[in-house]
Amino acid sequence: MFPKNAWYVACSANEIDDKPLGRKICGESLVLYRALGGKATALEDFCPHRGAPLSLGHVIEGKLVCGYHGLEMGCDGKTIAMPGQRVRGFPAIRNYPVIERYGFVWVWPGDAALADASKLHHLEWAESPEWAYGGGLFHINCDYRLMVDNLMDLTHETYVHSTSIGQKEIDETPTTTKVDGDTVVTSRFMENIQAPPFWRMALRGNHLADDVPVDRWQICRFTPPSHVMIEVGVAHAGKGGYNADPAHKVSSIVVDFITPETETSHWYFWGMARNFQPQDKALTATIREGQHKIFSEDLEMLESQQRNLLAHPTRNLLKLNIDSGGVQSRRVLDRLMAQEGIGAEGVTT
Amino acid sequence: MFPKNAWYVACSANEIDDKPLGRKICGESLVLYRALGGKATALEDFCPHRGAPLSLGHVIEGKLVCGYHGLEMGCDGKTIAMPGQRVRGFPAIRNYPVIERYGFVWVWPGDAALADASKLHHLEWAESPEWAYGGGLFHINCDYRLMVDNLMDLTHETYVHSTSIGQKEIDETPTTTKVDGDTVVTSRFMENIQAPPFWRMALRGNHLADDVPVDRWQICRFTPPSHVMIEVGVAHAGKGGYNADPAHKVSSIVVDFITPETETSHWYFWGMARNFQPQDKALTATIREGQHKIFSEDLEMLESQQRNLLAHPTRNLLKLNIDSGGVQSRRVLDRLMAQEGIGAEGVTT
Amino acid sequence: MFPKNAWYVACSANEIDDKPLGRKICGESLVLYRALGGKATALEDFCPHRGAPLSLGHVIEGKLVCGYHGLEMGCDGKTIAMPGQRVRGFPAIRNYPVIERYGFVWVWPGDAALADASKLHHLEWAESPEWAYGGGLFHINCDYRLMVDNLMDLTHETYVHSTSIGQKEIDETPTTTKVDGDTVVTSRFMENIQAPPFWRMALRGNHLADDVPVDRWQICRFTPPSHVMIEVGVAHAGKGGYNADPAHKVSSIVVDFITPETETSHWYFWGMARNFQPQDKALTATIREGQHKIFSEDLEMLESQQRNLLAHPTRNLLKLNIDSGGVQSRRVLDRLMAQEGIGAEGVTT
Repeated sequence: MFPKNAWYVACSANEIDDKPLGRKICGESLVLYRALGGKATALEDFCPHRGAPLSLGHVIEGKLVCGYHGLEMGCDGKTIAMPGQRVRGFPAIRNYPVIERYGFVWVWPGDAALADASKLHHLEWAESPEWAYGGGLFHINCDYRLMVDNLMDLTHETYVHSTSIGQKEIDETPTTTKVDGDTVVTSRFMENIQAPPFWRMALRGNHLADDVPVDRWQICRFTPPSHVMIEVGVAHAGKGGYNADPAHKVSSIVVDFITPETETSHWYFWGMARNFQPQDKALTATIREGQHKIFSEDLEMLESQQRNLLAHPTRNLLKLNIDSGGVQSRRVLDRLMAQEGIGAEGVTT
Repeated sequence: MFPKNAWYVACSANEIDDKPLGRKICGESLVLYRALGGKATALEDFCPHRGAPLSLGHVIEGKLVCGYHGLEMGCDGKTIAMPGQRVRGFPAIRNYPVIERYGFVWVWPGDAALADASKLHHLEWAESPEWAYGGGLFHINCDYRLMVDNLMDLTHETYVHSTSIGQKEIDETPTTTKVDGDTVVTSRFMENIQAPPFWRMALRGNHLADDVPVDRWQICRFTPPSHVMIEVGVAHAGKGGYNADPAHKVSSIVVDFITPETETSHWYFWGMARNFQPQDKALTATIREGQHKIFSEDLEMLESQQRNLLAHPTRNLLKLNIDSGGVQSRRVLDRLMAQEGIGAEGVTT
Repeated sequence: MFPKNAWYVACSANEIDDKPLGRKICGESLVLYRALGGKATALEDFCPHRGAPLSLGHVIEGKLVCGYHGLEMGCDGKTIAMPGQRVRGFPAIRNYPVIERYGFVWVWPGDAALADASKLHHLEWAESPEWAYGGGLFHINCDYRLMVDNLMDLTHETYVHSTSIGQKEIDETPTTTKVDGDTVVTSRFMENIQAPPFWRMALRGNHLADDVPVDRWQICRFTPPSHVMIEVGVAHAGKGGYNADPAHKVSSIVVDFITPETETSHWYFWGMARNFQPQDKALTATIREGQHKIFSEDLEMLESQQRNLLAHPTRNLLKLNIDSGGVQSRRVLDRLMAQEGIGAEGVTT
C-alpha cells in the first residue's frame, strides 16, 4: 500500500530524451515521453484503438504516435488524429500531472485535481553549481517500505556493507529519532574514529589526509511519500564535526527516491550529491561506482527479506530503538494513506 | 476460446521425421509421430502406465515406445505390448484425426466423429510445380485472434514494418471488406506508388526494374478456423495491376496458419508462396529471411498488446473501418463456437 | 505429502563448513550451520528482528550472526545478543533436531519431542575403510515419491539409460518384491549376460576381464522415510553371482537419499558406495562422473512426468507387477503419514 496523491520520481530526465518509456508507478502503467517543446508528459500506456502499449510507439513533432496503427495521441490523453478516421468520439486515456525538475520527471499517480506543484520538495543541491550529483536506478522486488526501513536504520552498514562504509562504531553509537510533522529524522554522531574505505577515498578526493581520526555523522531524513535524504560525512577529528569548516571535511547527501511499482516491488533512484570538488567528474564517477557496489549489497538482502515475510504473513516483527526511524516513517505513511481512504498497512510493520 | 471441430496445422511435416514431437494444440497435449509406413499420427501425450509424456520416447518399427518403461503404443491409442505384461486391460489414450497434406500435419482436436477430410482447404500453391514455398514457425504469447486482427488489417505495416513493406500509401488507401459465408476478404489496391524495400527485392528477384512506379495490392482472406491467406504483389504501374501479365509483376500469397495453443498463446506458421522463379532456391531463402525479420516485429507488439488487455479486462476496444476484417472474422468464429456450445468471446473484441 | 517425524538428509557435511546454508526441507525453510565446536545445527531461517534470512549471515565463534543488523542467534533458537539491545524478550525461532553422521547432516523436521537418534539407519559402508563413497546432489521438480517409484523399478534402465547400465535382459527378467515391516525389497537376478558399458568400466576398475559373460543383480531396498539403497553388481558368470568370491565380482550400493522440499520438488542425494579398490580415488571420480550422467537422464523424465500428472489430476495410473516396489513403498509412507494424521496420498499412486 502506498499514498497515491503525491509526487513520485518516475524516471530520470534523460530516460525519455530519445523515445517513449513504459514504466509502472504505484500500480499504474504509464507511458512517459516529451511532447511539443520537450514537455515531459505521462499518460496511460494504452492505445484506445486496440490496446497496444503506446510506449512501443514514436514521438513525432511532439505527438505520441502509436506504433501499431498510427493513432496520434495528444498530451492531454485525447486522440488528435488517425489516418482515415474521425477521432472525436474516441475515448480519452488518463493523463497524469507531471513536473520535470532537478533532473527527474515527477508524477502524481493519484487524483489529478489534488496535484499541487508546491508540494514538490525543494532540493537545494540539485540547482546549485556548488554541488555535483551522480546516481543510478535499481528495480527491486520488495515493498518500498522495506527500503525506507533500510535507509532509516543505518546500523545495517556494519553488516551489509562491512568492506566499504560499515564499521563497528555505527553499531555501538545510539541514534536519536525526531518527528516534525511529516518529516522523520534519525541522527547518529561518531567521534574520533577511523574512517572506513569509502570515506578515506572521499577524503583523498577532497585532498585531505585519510589516515587521521575523524568525526562521522549520519542524518537520515524521511519525507513523504518515500524520499530519504541522508546527510553523511566525515571531518578531521576535533574540527567541529558536522559543523566543521569545509576545509576540514567531506560531506554529502545520499539521495534516495523510492517509487513503488507494485505492492512488492519498487524503483530505487539512488545517488549522492556533494559540495566538495563539484567540478571533478572523475570523482563523481568514482563515488557513483562505489555507491553502485554498496547498494547492490542491499538488493539481495531486501528481496530475500520480502520472500521470507510473504512466507510468514502472520508473524510480528520487532520494533527496536534502531527501528524507530522506519517505524515513525510508516506512521506518517499510514496517516497519509488513511487520508486517502487506504487501509492501515499489514504484516510488515 | 477457439472452435475445436476444425483442422489446424499441428506441425510441419519434417518436424516429425526423426523423432516424436510433443505440442499443445487447442489446450490438448499431443504427441505427433510417424507410425508404420510413415503415417502421421497424433495421440494424447500421456503414457497410460505412469503418466510419462510419450513424446520423450522413440518410434521403433512404426510403434511409439515410451521412453520410461518401454510400453508400446499403437496409432489408435491402444497399448500394443509391454515387456512382461498383459496389456489388454490397459486404458486407451485419445487419438486425434490427422491428415498430412501440403507439407503440414493437420489435426482435428475436437469430436473425432465429426472430422471430415473434405473440410480441409484446397491449397493450389502447395501442389503445383509452378509455385515455391518457404516459411517458419513462431510461438507467440497472445490470443490467436489478435494475430487474425493483425493480418486482416495491414495498415499496421506502415508503422510496425516501416523499413520493409510499410509505406504511407497503405494508411491512406481505404479497404473494402466482404463476407461470403465463413470467408472474410479485405482488399486494398494502391496505384502508381514507389515499391518499398521488400518489394524492390522481389522485383529484382523476378528480373524486373525496381525503380519505376508500381501498382500494389493486398487481398486478405480469412477462412475458419484461423487461416489467413493474403494475396500480395506489385506490377509495373499501368500494366493492369493485380491482373497484369506475369511478365510485369511479382505476386505471392502470404500464408498464415494460426493454431491456438492456450487461451493466450498460439503457434504461428508463417510463409510465402510465389509463382515467379519457383526454381530459384536462393530467392526462396532471401524472401524467407525477409519475412522472418518482418514477422518478428509483430511479435513484441502482439505480446505487449495481450498483456495490456489482460491488465484491463473490462475496457472496450474500438472497431474502426480498418478493423472490419478482424471484426467480421471474429463473428465467423463466434458463430462456429456457438455451434459447438462455446460461449461468445469476451473482452478482446 | 510426506512424513515429518523422520530423519532426512538436509545436506552433505561439507556444504556447511564455510558458511551458513539456506535450504527448504519438507516445507520448512532452514538455516544449517556449524555452531560452537563445529556442531551441525538447524534453525528456522528467519531473523526474529526483521525477518531477514539468517542464511545470509555469518558464523562467528560458533554464533550465527544475522547479516542485516547483527543479531546473534544461539543454536537453541534463542537470541544471544544484539548490539545496543536487551534481547531477553525476543521471540525464539524454531530449532530442529540434528544428527551429523556418515558424511551427512540429518534433520528431523517434525515434532522435536519425538526425535529419536536410534531411528537413524546404520550404514555400514559409510564407516568402514573397506568401502569408498562418491556422490552428488540434484534439485528435482517432482514429488519425491516419483523418484522412489523410479528407483524401486529398474526396468526403466533399459529405456532411460540404454547407453550405460540399461540392457534388454533387465526388461525380460521378472522381479520379486518382499515387504518386511517398513522395509520393501525388490530383487532381480540375471544370469550369463553381457555386462553393459558402466559395468565393463567397473570390471576393468577392479582389474577383471570385461569381455566375458556375467551374472548381474539388483536388490532395491526402500526404508522410511524415503531412502533407497540398491545393491548392484556383476560377477563373472558361474562364480556364484551375488554370493561370488570378491575376486570374481564388482559389487556396490547405489545410495539414494530423497528429501522432499515441497509437495512437487525434492533434493536428491545420490551416490555409490563400493567395497572394491576403495583406495582408488581416480576410480571413485570415474564412477561418480558416470552416475552423474545416468541420473541426469532421469531428471527430464521425472519432471515431465510430474507436469503431466499435475495436468491430469484425476487420471488413475497403472500398478503393474514391475511397479510393486513403488506401490509397497507408498503403502509404508501412507501408514506413517496416517500415524501423523496426514491424509492418504492422492492422484499419483
